Amino acid sequence: MSEIAALVRDLVVANRILASENVVDAYGHVSVRHPGDPRRFLLATSIAPEMVEEAHIAEFDLECVPVKDDGRPLYHERFIHGGIYEARPDVQAVVHAHSEDVLPFSISAVPLRPVIHSGSFMGATVPVWDMADRFGPDTNMLVTNMEQARDLARCLGPHNVALMRGHGFSAAARSLIEVVRMAVYVPRNARVLMNALRLGSAIMPLHDGEIAARDAGYKPYSLETRRAWRYWAHKAGCAHLVEDHPVDHAHKPWGAA
Amino acid sequence: MSEIAALVRDLVVANRILASENVVDAYGHVSVRHPGDPRRFLLATSIAPEMVEEAHIAEFDLECVPVKDDGRPLYHERFIHGGIYEARPDVQAVVHAHSEDVLPFSISAVPLRPVIHSGSFMGATVPVWDMADRFGPDTNMLVTNMEQARDLARCLGPHNVALMRGHGFSAAARSLIEVVRMAVYVPRNARVLMNALRLGSAIMPLHDGEIAARDAGYKPYSLETRRAWRYWAHKAGCAHLVEDHPVDHAHKPWGAA
Amino acid sequence: MSEIAALVRDLVVANRILASENVVDAYGHVSVRHPGDPRRFLLATSIAPEMVEEAHIAEFDLECVPVKDDGRPLYHERFIHGGIYEARPDVQAVVHAHSEDVLPFSISAVPLRPVIHSGSFMGATVPVWDMADRFGPDTNMLVTNMEQARDLARCLGPHNVALMRGHGFSAAARSLIEVVRMAVYVPRNARVLMNALRLGSAIMPLHDGEIAARDAGYKPYSLETRRAWRYWAHKAGCAHLVEDHPVDHAHKPWGAA
Amino acid sequence: MSEIAALVRDLVVANRILASENVVDAYGHVSVRHPGDPRRFLLATSIAPEMVEEAHIAEFDLECVPVKDDGRPLYHERFIHGGIYEARPDVQAVVHAHSEDVLPFSISAVPLRPVIHSGSFMGATVPVWDMADRFGPDTNMLVTNMEQARDLARCLGPHNVALMRGHGFSAAARSLIEVVRMAVYVPRNARVLMNALRLGSAIMPLHDGEIAARDAGYKPYSLETRRAWRYWAHKAGCAHLVEDHPVDHAHKPWGAA
Repeated sequence: MSEIAALVRDLVVANRILASENVVDAYGHVSVRHPGDPRRFLLATSIAPEMVEEAHIAEFDLECVPVKDDGRPLYHERFIHGGIYEARPDVQAVVHAHSEDVLPFSISAVPLRPVIHSGSFMGATVPVWDMADRFGPDTNMLVTNMEQARDLARCLGPHNVALMRGHGFSAAARSLIEVVRMAVYVPRNARVLMNALRLGSAIMPLHDGEIAARDAGYKPYSLETRRAWRYWAHKAGCAHLVEDHPVDHAHKPWGAA
Repeated sequence: MSEIAALVRDLVVANRILASENVVDAYGHVSVRHPGDPRRFLLATSIAPEMVEEAHIAEFDLECVPVKDDGRPLYHERFIHGGIYEARPDVQAVVHAHSEDVLPFSISAVPLRPVIHSGSFMGATVPVWDMADRFGPDTNMLVTNMEQARDLARCLGPHNVALMRGHGFSAAARSLIEVVRMAVYVPRNARVLMNALRLGSAIMPLHDGEIAARDAGYKPYSLETRRAWRYWAHKAGCAHLVEDHPVDHAHKPWGAA
Repeated sequence: MSEIAALVRDLVVANRILASENVVDAYGHVSVRHPGDPRRFLLATSIAPEMVEEAHIAEFDLECVPVKDDGRPLYHERFIHGGIYEARPDVQAVVHAHSEDVLPFSISAVPLRPVIHSGSFMGATVPVWDMADRFGPDTNMLVTNMEQARDLARCLGPHNVALMRGHGFSAAARSLIEVVRMAVYVPRNARVLMNALRLGSAIMPLHDGEIAARDAGYKPYSLETRRAWRYWAHKAGCAHLVEDHPVDHAHKPWGAA
Repeated sequence: MSEIAALVRDLVVANRILASENVVDAYGHVSVRHPGDPRRFLLATSIAPEMVEEAHIAEFDLECVPVKDDGRPLYHERFIHGGIYEARPDVQAVVHAHSEDVLPFSISAVPLRPVIHSGSFMGATVPVWDMADRFGPDTNMLVTNMEQARDLARCLGPHNVALMRGHGFSAAARSLIEVVRMAVYVPRNARVLMNALRLGSAIMPLHDGEIAARDAGYKPYSLETRRAWRYWAHKAGCAHLVEDHPVDHAHKPWGAA
């Protein structure tokens, strides 16, 4: 199987996992940068993530124009992906979702921050982008052109996750498997933080050194993260689309450190 | 397939989706106005929505008398539908449900309002109807005649959703697909609002301009909403009852704006 | 099918529904008074409710001794049933369960009370029984003899539901179908009340007249409640154990009133 | 079937139950001490618990070195198990998990304590281990060597459960069946406590005498706990791996007391 065929198959798995893990519903999407051309990325045409198959995956340039336009309807918010890939050469994969449990932090002054170890990957700072700041109070709230997407990418800056006021979040990572992991654990971290805050005592977030150590400790396709990937695929009913990668077994996910 | 047969099939799908998405349980119902006669509407006879099949769909006049009474038991609260269709010629579909997560707002002075983009369709104002205001504190709380239903419709006024104190909500929309979308997202918006309020900081609801822009941007059978409809039908196990509508693909759900 | 065979089958269905609706788990039980002998009742031997079959149903006298002791292990807390049947000749069915969402009210001074129409059947007052009041702070918290069960029944008095501190609830009703409905809706009412209280405003419970009207309006085997029974059995995978009762179709669940 | 083969099979069941009951996800693990050699224990190699089969179970010494190293990847946090078995000769089984609903208590000053009867098995005191206290604020938060594991075991002391700040919990018990029961009910107790605290009134925890009576009342393989084991295995789809133990039927789980 070619590298690109394998990546398309992984992108199908990513879509199914995000649906199965309740990160996306009818809406939300996940993309991956083209391995052979950093000015392109792969994303499904307009369909709910749970129903994505390989034939739905299309190629887009960074302006979010399909490389081969066959008239199929497209996600209106595909621009989020182009905006982030353009601004962040280090980013290989992007998720946009409306996860219910991060939304309270997008409309409150209380910041979302990592308080559990699996939430560390969001990074110490999670900015909130309010579209109205630049585009006024009369938009339909969707990111439907490059100007809006570039503004969102500016707000994201060097961070991994940006909340979008009253709308959802966008996340960026070094690999498809990492962006899916982040999208699964950010809502969990949000629930733990909400529950802890309501207990009425001060709360203890992760130390910056812990966030850094965890970030440094994982390779983009670590063995430990593959374990989760295989499990989520199993739950999503697409274990048959996930191959074992025996070569990975030699990797130490927590290397010399 | 005739227009009416297609609509009956869509109404079956709507019932199954509302059950699968946890909007209704043994109780709750959804109706659609008759496409050929605005003085009639279609609604199931008494059965849980998840179990509705085409043979259960019956035709009612606006007084909620079945056009052909074959003695089958009827929903006691069918009057809600007649009352709203009578008062609101613009309304093509109605849902009544007891969704757990909107109920707290029906017994509290804290208003339900849209705080997430998918909740915009409830509109800026969601009135609360307290049956006791007009019918006293000794009713069984059910809307079982036209006088009660007309009072509820008066409270609903030009709005899209009315809460019913200690009971549930009734929602009205321009199409079956829109009323189902509203019924799915209103409880989600309620959960986000409850969680945000408990964080203890001021919260930021949608701007009126955003609510208006979103309302103006969708046609009653928009492509984007069909994507959700197909997904929800897939989850509910009745994808086979949903056809592709290729003609819709030409529509731009966010037209000139 | 004989009356007793039909009732045994209904008791199996009740067990399965309570498991499917998340009222019971490995523990918890439901019983029904013997239709031919008010000094006896039917209850499963020791097994998780979801796994109950007709062969598990045994007959007990009001001291909770099995009429025919074949050595099978018995529920330790079967005494709850005997205690309530003994004290309350009007009661035909009993549920004991540990539902998570009623438990907060059993360890707090905030009373559980009906705030939604489907919760009306618990009645205006829900007493809390603290076993330690009479049996001291060193029990294993289980009701394992008639003396304890009689004390619980005294606390229940003429009410429909008693909470048990840090343990669960016991509910009593005029029919199996009614006690199942109560057991399903009491936890839902508890969740709505918890959520409403946390919104921080005063809340509006049901009026006493509403509770009374609803109580008066339902017959023990009303058509409307059968609709829920059939639906819950369908979800629990035992629809085939539920027959249609065409004779009921003549009943008006909301009679002259 | 040999004793060790039966125990391996039980350990597979324990893994599946913990996944099915939502205690573990891709991460988390359960072990049992070797019945023939108290200096060894059984634990799966690196795989998500829901996917564990008999072939995944390996034998480890108390330093957490596999007795027969065949190069398969191992859980990084296996040291937790060795550390606890080394310090606590009374312990026969250990669970480590990241259950979402205990995490708020691990980052708040509000203590987790038993408030429901099924939570009694955690014991009156649940210490919180903060890895940073001894190993500083720059770790990756995982317990990946014996020094860290011994520090955790010191914090656990004579107790049954220790929370780990921002990470999860580790639980120890006299049998596999008991440690699974504890792992299922500790998160439930946490939810009830969170909900009760938010009602705003003082709450009533279990009495010390109740905790003691319950602890004394159960044998490590009591009949009542087997009922839960069989039910959880049934739900997890592995009922076929659970045999009846007719000899147990003679045991009285609440003996002379």
